[in-house]
Amino acid sequence: MQEINVFEHAEAILKQLSKGAFLNTAANGTQNTMTIGWGQLGFQWGVPTFAVMVRESRYTKGLLDENAVFTVSIPVNDGFQKALGICGSKSGRDMDKFEAAGLETEMGKTVFAPIVKGCGLQIECEVVETKVMEPEQFDGEMADKWYAAGDWHTYYVGKITAAYLE
Amino acid sequence: MQEINVFEHAEAILKQLSKGAFLNTAANGTQNTMTIGWGQLGFQWGVPTFAVMVRESRYTKGLLDENAVFTVSIPVNDGFQKALGICGSKSGRDMDKFEAAGLETEMGKTVFAPIVKGCGLQIECEVVETKVMEPEQFDGEMADKWYAAGDWHTYYVGKITAAYLE
Repeated sequence: MQEINVFEHAEAILKQLSKGAFLNTAANGTQNTMTIGWGQLGFQWGVPTFAVMVRESRYTKGLLDENAVFTVSIPVNDGFQKALGICGSKSGRDMDKFEAAGLETEMGKTVFAPIVKGCGLQIECEVVETKVMEPEQFDGEMADKWYAAGDWHTYYVGKITAAYLE
Repeated sequence: MQEINVFEHAEAILKQLSKGAFLNTAANGTQNTMTIGWGQLGFQWGVPTFAVMVRESRYTKGLLDENAVFTVSIPVNDGFQKALGICGSKSGRDMDKFEAAGLETEMGKTVFAPIVKGCGLQIECEVVETKVMEPEQFDGEMADKWYAAGDWHTYYVGKITAAYLE
């Protein structure tokens, strides 16, 4: 494990995020992962941050609302394409997605949420801001495209508590 | 001028942002700049985004609310330290800050807002989401530190319409 300055890996993080990463959560005696393709890497309140977006309908949302921490496992290593597909199309309400996708986990170093082992780059966060998107605050054309069903995202802005290469 | 993939310059953008950049706006027949040190570079709704945060009290806020576009001039070139100091401590209500700080401007290529010439890296954005921070959605300890006076930030999430090196 090698701790990193996330900004020095920002290119790899943002490029891979747009292709798929694992958002991992744990609460209520269970744990879950979902594939994400959107997010924000930032510097706010004097610290590096990572913001994820989770739709209202997602199983992950309930877990995050219960235990406001998460990890993002960025698969900079190969071999995770199939698992990203499974974790982006199935719900943790119906199955253990880690098991279904053949993913090995271990507990985060700084937060009570798992990481997906082997991805290569891990980010751990404590949520400091939770914002539900509001239709009147969002571009109408984009809303028609992304939120026609009304299933808006909630932003979870995380203070990065650890970032490291495996 | 050389168009760039912002993610390929993410390290430079985020590292310099944390030291200071110019947020430029124009509306109502005037233009303004302010120094920012916080923000988020992201991938959302299928496009690269840049989010800035502006406190309620700022002159920039009124301009942004009137004309929802902005540019961020990232001083990857030397020689802007003094200007960043001036533009971070004076208000555009009282003066033309570009003039006061000895900054040359030109109009953005894709939005009606100026850029600060010579900074080296320019990002132009159209605002697609405007979110006022809400105390009950934010970490209490950080709120005491950053918002004791109640002067909360509004997020302006911009879809990046152009990014280039000078």
